[in-house]
Amino acid sequence: VYDVNRQTIRALATVKEVFQNKSEFPTRHIGPRKTDVVSMLDLLGFKTLDELTDKVVPKKIKFDRDLQIDEPLNEHELINRIRAVAKKNTIWRSYIGMGYHNCYVPHPILRNIFENPGWTTQYTPYQPEIAQGRLESLLNYQTLVTEMTGLDVANASLLDEGTAAAEAMSLCYRHNKRRKIYLSQNLHPQTLSVVETRLRAFDIDVIIGPINEVDFSNHDYSGILLQYPDTYGNVNCIEQIATEARKNGTLVCVATDLLALTLLRPPAEFGADIAVGTSQRLGVPLGYGGPHAGFFACKQKLVRLIPGRMVGVTRDHDGHDAYRLALQTREQHIRRDKATSNICTAQALLANMSAMFAVYHGPDGLKDIAQNIHNAAIALSYGLKRAGHQQLNEVFFDTIRVVPMGLTIEDIKERSQRKQINLRYVHDGSVTIALDETVKTGDIEDLLWIFKADSLSDILEDPSALNQSIFNSNFKRTSPFLTHPVFSKHHSESRMVRYMKQLENKDISLVHSMIPLGSCTMKLNSTTEMIPCSFRHFTDIHPFAPVDQAKGYHQMFNELERDLCEITGYDKISFQPNSGAQGEYAGLRAIRGYHEANGNHHRTICLIPVSAHGTNPASAQMAGMRVEPIKVKASDGTIDLAHLKEKAEEFSEILSCLMLTYPSTNGIFEEGVAEVCELIHKHGGQVYLDGANMNAQVGLCRPGDYGSDVSHLNLHKTFCIPHGGGGPGMGPIGVKKHLAPFLPSHPVIDIFHELEDNQSFGTISAAPYGSSAILPISWAYIKLMGGRGLRRATQVAILNANYMSTKLEPYYKTLYKDPASGLVAHEFILDIRDFKRTANIEAVDIAKRLMDYGFHAPTMSWPVAGTLMIEPTESEDKEELDRFCEALMTIREEIREIEEGKMDMKVNPLKMSPHTQFQVVNSEWNRPYTREQAAFPAPFVRSDSKVWPSVARIDDAYGDKHLVCTCPPILPDLYT
Amino acid sequence: VYDVNRQTIRALATVKEVFQNKSEFPTRHIGPRKTDVVSMLDLLGFKTLDELTDKVVPKKIKFDRDLQIDEPLNEHELINRIRAVAKKNTIWRSYIGMGYHNCYVPHPILRNIFENPGWTTQYTPYQPEIAQGRLESLLNYQTLVTEMTGLDVANASLLDEGTAAAEAMSLCYRHNKRRKIYLSQNLHPQTLSVVETRLRAFDIDVIIGPINEVDFSNHDYSGILLQYPDTYGNVNCIEQIATEARKNGTLVCVATDLLALTLLRPPAEFGADIAVGTSQRLGVPLGYGGPHAGFFACKQKLVRLIPGRMVGVTRDHDGHDAYRLALQTREQHIRRDKATSNICTAQALLANMSAMFAVYHGPDGLKDIAQNIHNAAIALSYGLKRAGHQQLNEVFFDTIRVVPMGLTIEDIKERSQRKQINLRYVHDGSVTIALDETVKTGDIEDLLWIFKADSLSDILEDPSALNQSIFNSNFKRTSPFLTHPVFSKHHSESRMVRYMKQLENKDISLVHSMIPLGSCTMKLNSTTEMIPCSFRHFTDIHPFAPVDQAKGYHQMFNELERDLCEITGYDKISFQPNSGAQGEYAGLRAIRGYHEANGNHHRTICLIPVSAHGTNPASAQMAGMRVEPIKVKASDGTIDLAHLKEKAEEFSEILSCLMLTYPSTNGIFEEGVAEVCELIHKHGGQVYLDGANMNAQVGLCRPGDYGSDVSHLNLHKTFCIPHGGGGPGMGPIGVKKHLAPFLPSHPVIDIFHELEDNQSFGTISAAPYGSSAILPISWAYIKLMGGRGLRRATQVAILNANYMSTKLEPYYKTLYKDPASGLVAHEFILDIRDFKRTANIEAVDIAKRLMDYGFHAPTMSWPVAGTLMIEPTESEDKEELDRFCEALMTIREEIREIEEGKMDMKVNPLKMSPHTQFQVVNSEWNRPYTREQAAFPAPFVRSDSKVWPSVARIDDAYGDKHLVCTCPPILPDLYT
Ligand SMILES: Cc1ncc(COP(=O)(O)O)c(C=O)c1O
Ligand SMILES: Cc1ncc(COP(=O)(O)O)c(C=O)c1O
Ligand SMILES: O=C([O-])O
Repeated sequence: VYDVNRQTIRALATVKEVFQNKSEFPTRHIGPRKTDVVSMLDLLGFKTLDELTDKVVPKKIKFDRDLQIDEPLNEHELINRIRAVAKKNTIWRSYIGMGYHNCYVPHPILRNIFENPGWTTQYTPYQPEIAQGRLESLLNYQTLVTEMTGLDVANASLLDEGTAAAEAMSLCYRHNKRRKIYLSQNLHPQTLSVVETRLRAFDIDVIIGPINEVDFSNHDYSGILLQYPDTYGNVNCIEQIATEARKNGTLVCVATDLLALTLLRPPAEFGADIAVGTSQRLGVPLGYGGPHAGFFACKQKLVRLIPGRMVGVTRDHDGHDAYRLALQTREQHIRRDKATSNICTAQALLANMSAMFAVYHGPDGLKDIAQNIHNAAIALSYGLKRAGHQQLNEVFFDTIRVVPMGLTIEDIKERSQRKQINLRYVHDGSVTIALDETVKTGDIEDLLWIFKADSLSDILEDPSALNQSIFNSNFKRTSPFLTHPVFSKHHSESRMVRYMKQLENKDISLVHSMIPLGSCTMKLNSTTEMIPCSFRHFTDIHPFAPVDQAKGYHQMFNELERDLCEITGYDKISFQPNSGAQGEYAGLRAIRGYHEANGNHHRTICLIPVSAHGTNPASAQMAGMRVEPIKVKASDGTIDLAHLKEKAEEFSEILSCLMLTYPSTNGIFEEGVAEVCELIHKHGGQVYLDGANMNAQVGLCRPGDYGSDVSHLNLHKTFCIPHGGGGPGMGPIGVKKHLAPFLPSHPVIDIFHELEDNQSFGTISAAPYGSSAILPISWAYIKLMGGRGLRRATQVAILNANYMSTKLEPYYKTLYKDPASGLVAHEFILDIRDFKRTANIEAVDIAKRLMDYGFHAPTMSWPVAGTLMIEPTESEDKEELDRFCEALMTIREEIREIEEGKMDMKVNPLKMSPHTQFQVVNSEWNRPYTREQAAFPAPFVRSDSKVWPSVARIDDAYGDKHLVCTCPPILPDLYT
Repeated sequence: VYDVNRQTIRALATVKEVFQNKSEFPTRHIGPRKTDVVSMLDLLGFKTLDELTDKVVPKKIKFDRDLQIDEPLNEHELINRIRAVAKKNTIWRSYIGMGYHNCYVPHPILRNIFENPGWTTQYTPYQPEIAQGRLESLLNYQTLVTEMTGLDVANASLLDEGTAAAEAMSLCYRHNKRRKIYLSQNLHPQTLSVVETRLRAFDIDVIIGPINEVDFSNHDYSGILLQYPDTYGNVNCIEQIATEARKNGTLVCVATDLLALTLLRPPAEFGADIAVGTSQRLGVPLGYGGPHAGFFACKQKLVRLIPGRMVGVTRDHDGHDAYRLALQTREQHIRRDKATSNICTAQALLANMSAMFAVYHGPDGLKDIAQNIHNAAIALSYGLKRAGHQQLNEVFFDTIRVVPMGLTIEDIKERSQRKQINLRYVHDGSVTIALDETVKTGDIEDLLWIFKADSLSDILEDPSALNQSIFNSNFKRTSPFLTHPVFSKHHSESRMVRYMKQLENKDISLVHSMIPLGSCTMKLNSTTEMIPCSFRHFTDIHPFAPVDQAKGYHQMFNELERDLCEITGYDKISFQPNSGAQGEYAGLRAIRGYHEANGNHHRTICLIPVSAHGTNPASAQMAGMRVEPIKVKASDGTIDLAHLKEKAEEFSEILSCLMLTYPSTNGIFEEGVAEVCELIHKHGGQVYLDGANMNAQVGLCRPGDYGSDVSHLNLHKTFCIPHGGGGPGMGPIGVKKHLAPFLPSHPVIDIFHELEDNQSFGTISAAPYGSSAILPISWAYIKLMGGRGLRRATQVAILNANYMSTKLEPYYKTLYKDPASGLVAHEFILDIRDFKRTANIEAVDIAKRLMDYGFHAPTMSWPVAGTLMIEPTESEDKEELDRFCEALMTIREEIREIEEGKMDMKVNPLKMSPHTQFQVVNSEWNRPYTREQAAFPAPFVRSDSKVWPSVARIDDAYGDKHLVCTCPPILPDLYT
């Protein structure tokens, strides 16, 4: 009960308090109230949080001072602060192109998806029964990509165009094992760099040249990569080269532009096997380079080699159509170092935005947009030519390349500066101009002015201007696209908003209930952190704009780097990796670069505990390393130190590194982590510490202090970037000083200006600073929490995990605990494997049954098969933890009923879960339990507010057998 | 199917098209696609929209040119344009107070309520079964108000503090019929004006003076109104005067401040009968005056006289707790000219924001905020006194009044200008400074600097500064507040967001399906129109800031006025009325003023057709007029012209005006409207045309052309302001030139500067321009649509209504159609009265049954008892109209089953509707129809996406008998 007198005392004490900078944000971010913390600690036998975490974190590695981070800002000060930073960016019109084009983000999509926590706080749709909304949208995305490219299948996004191209060329190599590839010299420079960097790690021969000079006669090219239209705007015929390549067993990959393909013949019609690119210009802001969705499409025959996630159609328990992620066995979480790719977090949210852009505009609308851009380019080209400039493109879509006549490049630069316009200056003295959806008369006039050409007015009327139209060329598209009704039904805003809402409401996200996915850190993504992501001064900057136009961004990078270094104990951060897995890859490449710089080319062994996340071995393999698995002790889940020592010694001469997750993926702060690092260093190796579990460490211990050399930080876990239904994320890496010269570089933007001894291994993302546009989220989180707040968050994350583990003790065994303290870190594994024997119940049954309680399942069968891993995070309050525990306890009773023979082994609430409205609102009901038990199994599951699964249990095998990965034909409604 | 070649032709024709300003917004706003329009017209036997509307709109009144409105902007240009306008406002710190205080809008509330169409596009919760979410939130609001004021009951918001005070004083008069009131001279000046204006219309004697000089001895005071703390910041003891008043049968009304009441003894403890005020400072932006929620609380004994809407607790068909609007019989829609007030649209959305502010901060949090402000005020006061200034307040909360010493007022003005700070300059040479939640050290330092006082630092340490604390006074609050758990459970952001989402998901809004409420015009409220409402340059300006700081607002007012005049044919607009009913009242007062200026004080008769909206007679009565009802013809629902003529003649000498709705509330463009106006004018009367149905007229005909003198425009209908679950709205009035001098004025801001012959009747809203902050919505709508787009919208609104009416013809009779054309206007009435006899089915049964189909009911039993009125608006597309028709057709079949004796008269899907999950997911089911029929009655109601009512049919009578209007005690969960 509220004590009205409490503050009387305060008021009498001093008038000063008002002027203390009282940040209340930590109490908003952290779930349990102070009194809850006391009672929860009490259950564990502790008096204070410090007492608890002193027991949990090994003494030796403890960070024993306060984090040196600015005093926390309150939420409104934060917005003022970041607005001031943002305004240091200056927004010019950028006609630089190179894969990044300004566009109009439809406001209904902006507000109802990008700014809506119902969409942004979803996790990757691994639990399809409560994820049909975003699965449908991602299927729309795949359909968009296949229809525009003309290919058979597409995935649900990759990280960007550069990595999509690298994945394509890697696929070629996996497909035909040839060790040579050919890259068109007219690819975007960042695509060239990323592909070259990636493929050279496999010792693949990378040839770069003009596309008409490939010599296929040796039958030794694995794949060839072209761009259509190319980086200078040319639309080249690729038919002949494709035919030739095919004849010689070489795969043809085409980097392309989905918007251009509304007017241009699709690559598949020229014989392409794979198409890649970015869908940024379909409704996603520039954001200084990202996040945007890379796309990847290929022929059916290559489907099992496709990287990343792919949505497919299958059926549910009742035979209804349902969506889910298809062909999961390709992925790194199953195949580890034999995985097709290390892609995990991708760009789901952005893919959904682009898919919705296509739904909103439809085929005619997209074509209108393309047509308008093309017409503008024609007018510009005509005007420039008439003014005497040399225009180099024969056929083009939106980009023209011009050699100015009678004006120097310096003149052009000076005149464009006056108009605040950015152009691309090619080294040969030509200039390219790439137009986009936002172009208006005034823009063309300004461009003509820059080149001292005449004004537009008469060009518009001159019919001969049209000679250069695609419609007068052989490239004109004749095949229809986006014929599925979903692309034609939602063109009014009312309809569009309802469609997005209907999908949103099928999916569980953090706006409904806790999502206790172990290793995923589904914590609060606060509104204040998200607001700056919509600031124009962050969204509207081209990644290759001159750096002095991005001063705000760079200030933000610098401040975030400083804070992350302080938090991790590292010396330098690279923001280029745009996912955790990319971070792993970048970190391992840096290690490799370091060894090579020391003459140790032979150091290629990477030790990885078997409990590691599947991306670790997949990344190691991609970095050209050989993976040696290290055993984990069955008793407590910690690394088998004897085995590690043995392996370290065995490979001492050729040891590259150890990849370690800390606290371990098993949820334990291993006592000997410092010794482990020492051991590796002794053998000449480096330590890569997977930072996915930083949420258990911030403020308590620092990887850089206890011996690690490099880590990635999943900013989409510990640092509050929402998961977006499977991305975006950011995986910057922190390194100790000796690795700094080996960080990623960039071919367009000199990100190494401050480092003298740049020995970079190359480029890993298309954009110099990865997904820059979401970095304000992490920046804001740190500024809002302050050092003490961050530390308290970590402590409460640990408290919450231990509270749940202890509360569940009488019902479920926690598989691993610290042998000394009996405590876990910030997550813990429930061992439910025995129920298979006693009741025929498996992890999946409990996971699906939890949906009936309105919950998302914990992480299933990872890191230990047949178990559930729970990570509550600090943002969940005691009431929510109690509800989740109550659900699990009730489920334990349901299992007991089976064990005791009171409930059927096959037909019981667990095996039949999740229960849909179709099932329980049905005249037929012949199950040995009631409808109420099925759908309302606990008092807190209320009929006035239940969140339902929209389909029954998914049949995964059926879907993989009958693979459909685009929008299915509309069938008559089979069920209500 | 998509025709890929379509655009080839366009491209070949010209390169010019790109440069045409192609606004596609009208195709986003209007639902039916072009091809749909063709097929729908076909059903009606027309070839073009013009053909249709030429038939519908009487030739005589047709507007036969294009609207002279700017060429439409596209959605992105619009945002740039409005941003530029907004930036012409300059944001200074305003310590003006007077009922408006800067505050921090919690970002989670901003984004998840204020910017969320799931909340903003709800209608008033007249259908409680699909409105439990906002009803719960409004009940929280009422609880907040009762607990802070200490009174028994509160309503769910009024329009602002001024009108709430006027309502209070009117209530006093209704209560005890005494014709004299006393107003403290220390009320906010706008409160004084609004109350005085209102009460003088009843010929009430209004005395204004110091509160200690009331002479009660005549027992003739109806009520007394005081302010606590008063407009100059003084906290005065009101106990003695209240005691005295009570002894003499006078009601005591107190205008107060909910935030101050966390520290101050509540008015009820001093004996107040009524408390009013604004809850703006609880989390609602200043917005240059509104919208904000006015509050109204009173003692239980007065509950049946309470104005506006009030939420109460009742039970549903299954006996579960449920919320609904209580005591509806008090309201104008039942009691017409005997109504307690004309309040219809109020401020639901803003009340919800304030309620959520209280939920988010809780009692301790609110008190912390208040305490901090109070401490800041103490420090400031102390500093100013020490510097030798005279401080006039003995006890204060946040506002101090100072007579500067050694500095002139001009000095103060000049120095505050330098700091960009606004203060209040009282006529007697004193200055008041009202602090608020956002105040920081720097602000106090700046204020001290303005007064040449010393800096803060040592004040903070000086304990004697605290002498002036409320805690050292008799005013210190000792009673607890907000003890209900809802105010303590949701303090983490995760919890808060989930709470708001849970409530949102219980309610049907436009994000789910069409809301075909006749007369309410539930059309698209587009995202682009809503975005500017969050611009700082609109939200953060005090309404009494110097006008030159609000240049952007004034440009917007001017542009909107120009456009609205063009659309309506009027000459001048007043933006002061903040609801339609306020507009009626203002318009009638202008008419009265006009008559009086012409020496016609006796012209007081107001003719109103019986079909008019209940606010019309209620407003007429409030304006001091006598209402004479005019009959309507039973055959076609048009005005009985003979009766009208008769009455006009009968009252010719004392005729004030006719109030007319056009097209009529019965959905008909009456042929003779121009003659009707002429007739009235002939008899010396004026014509008030209720503009609620402007959506049928824009671009087709103009009230100002065919004879009306004044209209209100419900901008929350035709001009796209969302209904917000019952407000905010805006009801500006347009007048012909001769009425312009009689428009509302304002005591603080001279809104009449451009008019020489101001003969204003007074003030009707607290803010000079009503709810200024939502005017950008209507401004944007007009700019986005352009003249042709607006006209087309009207035409499609008429098409949609006629399409539905025709499609439903075989199933339901449309009660009234135009006798000549057989067509309706933009809405139509389904006559279902006969089903009472044939099947015992009434309007309410069909309304509730529609919920099972996922639809909101049409307007029920208005304007004709026992009927349903459907207004589809232009924003609904053909598919949605067809779905709604299909629902109604299926329901017709269900009725037929009863008629034919195949279904029970009492237990059938209609009588038992709506069906909840509790009912259909229940082992017990003994109804003569299936669960599927109950819950999934049509193929489009799908079990994977159904929107459910959260409670079963509400028992209204029970609730009114057992009135509970604050949060009910938490009972053990009675049902799943
Ligand atoms: C332990 C661990 N390492 C690496 C990753 C890969 O990170 P990302 O998904 O950002 O690529 C994950 C992702 O969940 C993880 O849990
Ligand atoms: C015909 C008519 N007149 C007046 C009003 C009152 O408008 P408001 O609710 O804005 O006060 C309404 C409201 O629905 C109406 O339909
Ligand atoms: O996404 C994960 O694989 O954890």
